[in-house]
Amino acid sequence: TFGKFGEDWVHFYLFTLGITMAVISFLMDWGINLCLTGRKTLYETLNHHIALQYFSWIILPILLVLFSAALVHIVAPQAIGSGIPEMKTILRGVILKDYLSFRTLFAKVIGLVASLGSGMPLGKEGPFVHIASIVATQLAKLRIFKSIYENQSRGMEMLAAACAVGVACCFAAPVGGVLMSIEVTSVYFAVRDYWRGFFAATFGATFFRLLAVWFQGHETLKPVFRTYFGSEFPYDPLELIIFAFIGVISGLIGASFVFLHRQYVLWMRSNKKLNSILQKNRFMYPIIISWFIASVTFPPGFGQFIAGNLTTHDQVLTLFSNFSWSKYNFTPGESFVVKKWDNPSTGIFVNLGLYCITTFFLSIIASTLPVPSGNFVPVFKMGAGVGRIVGEAMQLCFPKGLKFSEENWKIVPGAYAVVGAAAVTGAVTRTVSVCVIVVEMTGQITYIIPILLAVLISNVIAGLLQPSIFDSIAIIKR
Amino acid sequence: TFGKFGEDWVHFYLFTLGITMAVISFLMDWGINLCLTGRKTLYETLNHHIALQYFSWIILPILLVLFSAALVHIVAPQAIGSGIPEMKTILRGVILKDYLSFRTLFAKVIGLVASLGSGMPLGKEGPFVHIASIVATQLAKLRIFKSIYENQSRGMEMLAAACAVGVACCFAAPVGGVLMSIEVTSVYFAVRDYWRGFFAATFGATFFRLLAVWFQGHETLKPVFRTYFGSEFPYDPLELIIFAFIGVISGLIGASFVFLHRQYVLWMRSNKKLNSILQKNRFMYPIIISWFIASVTFPPGFGQFIAGNLTTHDQVLTLFSNFSWSKYNFTPGESFVVKKWDNPSTGIFVNLGLYCITTFFLSIIASTLPVPSGNFVPVFKMGAGVGRIVGEAMQLCFPKGLKFSEENWKIVPGAYAVVGAAAVTGAVTRTVSVCVIVVEMTGQITYIIPILLAVLISNVIAGLLQPSIFDSIAIIKR
Repeated sequence: TFGKFGEDWVHFYLFTLGITMAVISFLMDWGINLCLTGRKTLYETLNHHIALQYFSWIILPILLVLFSAALVHIVAPQAIGSGIPEMKTILRGVILKDYLSFRTLFAKVIGLVASLGSGMPLGKEGPFVHIASIVATQLAKLRIFKSIYENQSRGMEMLAAACAVGVACCFAAPVGGVLMSIEVTSVYFAVRDYWRGFFAATFGATFFRLLAVWFQGHETLKPVFRTYFGSEFPYDPLELIIFAFIGVISGLIGASFVFLHRQYVLWMRSNKKLNSILQKNRFMYPIIISWFIASVTFPPGFGQFIAGNLTTHDQVLTLFSNFSWSKYNFTPGESFVVKKWDNPSTGIFVNLGLYCITTFFLSIIASTLPVPSGNFVPVFKMGAGVGRIVGEAMQLCFPKGLKFSEENWKIVPGAYAVVGAAAVTGAVTRTVSVCVIVVEMTGQITYIIPILLAVLISNVIAGLLQPSIFDSIAIIKR
Repeated sequence: TFGKFGEDWVHFYLFTLGITMAVISFLMDWGINLCLTGRKTLYETLNHHIALQYFSWIILPILLVLFSAALVHIVAPQAIGSGIPEMKTILRGVILKDYLSFRTLFAKVIGLVASLGSGMPLGKEGPFVHIASIVATQLAKLRIFKSIYENQSRGMEMLAAACAVGVACCFAAPVGGVLMSIEVTSVYFAVRDYWRGFFAATFGATFFRLLAVWFQGHETLKPVFRTYFGSEFPYDPLELIIFAFIGVISGLIGASFVFLHRQYVLWMRSNKKLNSILQKNRFMYPIIISWFIASVTFPPGFGQFIAGNLTTHDQVLTLFSNFSWSKYNFTPGESFVVKKWDNPSTGIFVNLGLYCITTFFLSIIASTLPVPSGNFVPVFKMGAGVGRIVGEAMQLCFPKGLKFSEENWKIVPGAYAVVGAAAVTGAVTRTVSVCVIVVEMTGQITYIIPILLAVLISNVIAGLLQPSIFDSIAIIKR
């Protein structure tokens, strides 16, 4: 099926594409981290005065969102949003003007660094797929690659590979990226692209992780959200019922997310008075929204209930942590994690509940900002919260584990968080590739069966109620 | 892309397919194990007399192979061989007579149990794909499913799902199964089948492992070739060069395997004298070959150099073991493993080398037996041996690991065996799905990057020299 490998230029092209995207991804992560650390340092330095502290907490996000919105408005409005709905359209054969131009690349890369650096609940999977597609298109214009990109169908092939590379360099998930590229394709997937996707994605993901070894002092190639669950007795077969239940509620949550997202956008659009105000003051909306979201997460305020002083990356890592938060004797490291999610006046269940609800609504609002942004990560962390609630509840009900063997294996609430994250993301994006992406992100395949089960169920449930978020956005735009 | 889920019958059908295949697979494994344990018990009971012991070692294989050959000869000659080349032909739209009939199913299931129970170096992946395809076809003839199977293209869809289920129930590898079904497809893969494959494969794999929990006392759902590598520091980035080198030699080994396999078959066919003898005595060839192979593996004889008293499953498990065989202080468990592969007069390197070479040639010879059989597992275990040699050599050269951090992380020879197994299998079958299958079989994703790298390289190298074993068989048959 893989034809001849004499097409050396194609392989060199795919290799170059993978390496280029790895470098871009690494640099972007570096930029995003710079913004996030800058904000945190500023906030911690000004800890003697609450008003100053509040000001320091909100000012950087507002400025960054404003900068991102202004940049894409001036340079390339095509860079706004995720990019996956448009990729789906292009892969159906429709040509979208300037969507794959160098201007759009520039605006999307810089704009995404700013919008993710602002700490808003925004994702990067979709934009990375878009960026990889532009890089693929622009690379193909170079003289040495010109011959391989001559006809239209070849162009489609390269976009499928680019999709795989985008995911591979975003989450270090090459296999998940290839599956994602199949799911983005409309009706028929060329089997040849499967091999090409693997080729480009593997080199992309490898080089992306190697850069972390060379420049960030990692000792070896590591997954992005590494988990540390035991593999000796991961779960009792009876727990599969609970995992299936997580699938059901995740499907409902996913469908409501898509529904409310569409309703919010349509309401915004139909409200003429609001519209005319926003039209006149183009940057009022970004300022208000980013100010509102930053205020809600302000750590001394409401933020104390929703782990507001953790970055998205740390929120996910702690939600995936391998110990129960409802026990009593913590090690110093565990205690540090729990304190982020616990609060003397509420407790972890109330906090986790507030976290899920807040993330749900703030993600919907944030995704309407006119900046480059995706939906994957916000939905993912909300799902992790939902799963963690179920896991901690299970742990409370069965403190010694489901009685099965005499050794009393315990419940692993972190695994429930992983399953929940995958199931909700699967329901919103209506993909199964998320199973593989999650496995590659955590570096553990131990829970593949629960993850697959929950994702399939959440997909079916959400499918009965709503279209995917990408199709929903496409409906709105039509 | 996943369309409506209102097609409840399709889902019920896919669910039934998955469960049915899980039960068949479980019963077959039980039957195969019965044969293998019976032979071992007989052999161990007669340990006072070497001639009797030799007789007991060879008689059961000869009888089982003979039974298998006679059964498929009388009932359904379509059951001979792997089935994947024919599946590829059918998925191209060609109708092969009686290939998906109930008679063939019966012959293939019983024949495969006998041929695998004989301990010959034969595989089961291909036959399982074939069996799943027949089950899918036969299920669709039931009255309740009749409506969904009306037109031709629907039939193709069901076969793609069946392919995924076959692999899922063979190795408990649902994701790898879906990828395999893409690779078996000729040119364009219907994206809808992707979802259906996942659905059926997940339920199949889950139920397959649940049966082991319910009837074999497993405590939880376990991978088939579970590994226990540490995930803290799996490999030094520099080791990627060695993994790539394994990819290169695996590609060469894979190509020579395909080449010599074809040459052997063509030589057998062109030798008219030999042919006329074999034609007259139809069961002479199976008897001679199974006698020869059983004799070579006779443990007190040559078998002592090639771990002849281990089953294929145990050979793979020990080759994947997580400690170096060339150190000195072993725990009792480790010592037990090493003794199987060590020999006072030779040592592990000579033994491993002999094991690889013997498995290489015996697999080629065995695959010409007129019984149901696949190529995946024999090639897989040979690759594991090749990888282990490289791993143990690395361990000898760098007994304290590649100096990178101060903590001196050690080389993990078992991981080299996993990479080698994947790379050689990938080269022979020319698939990338083997990466995911290996990850699901071992239950550890820690080495996904080395595995992907080695498999891609071995695929490219083998692709420059030879077609895949499936295409090679199709060329011979034409």
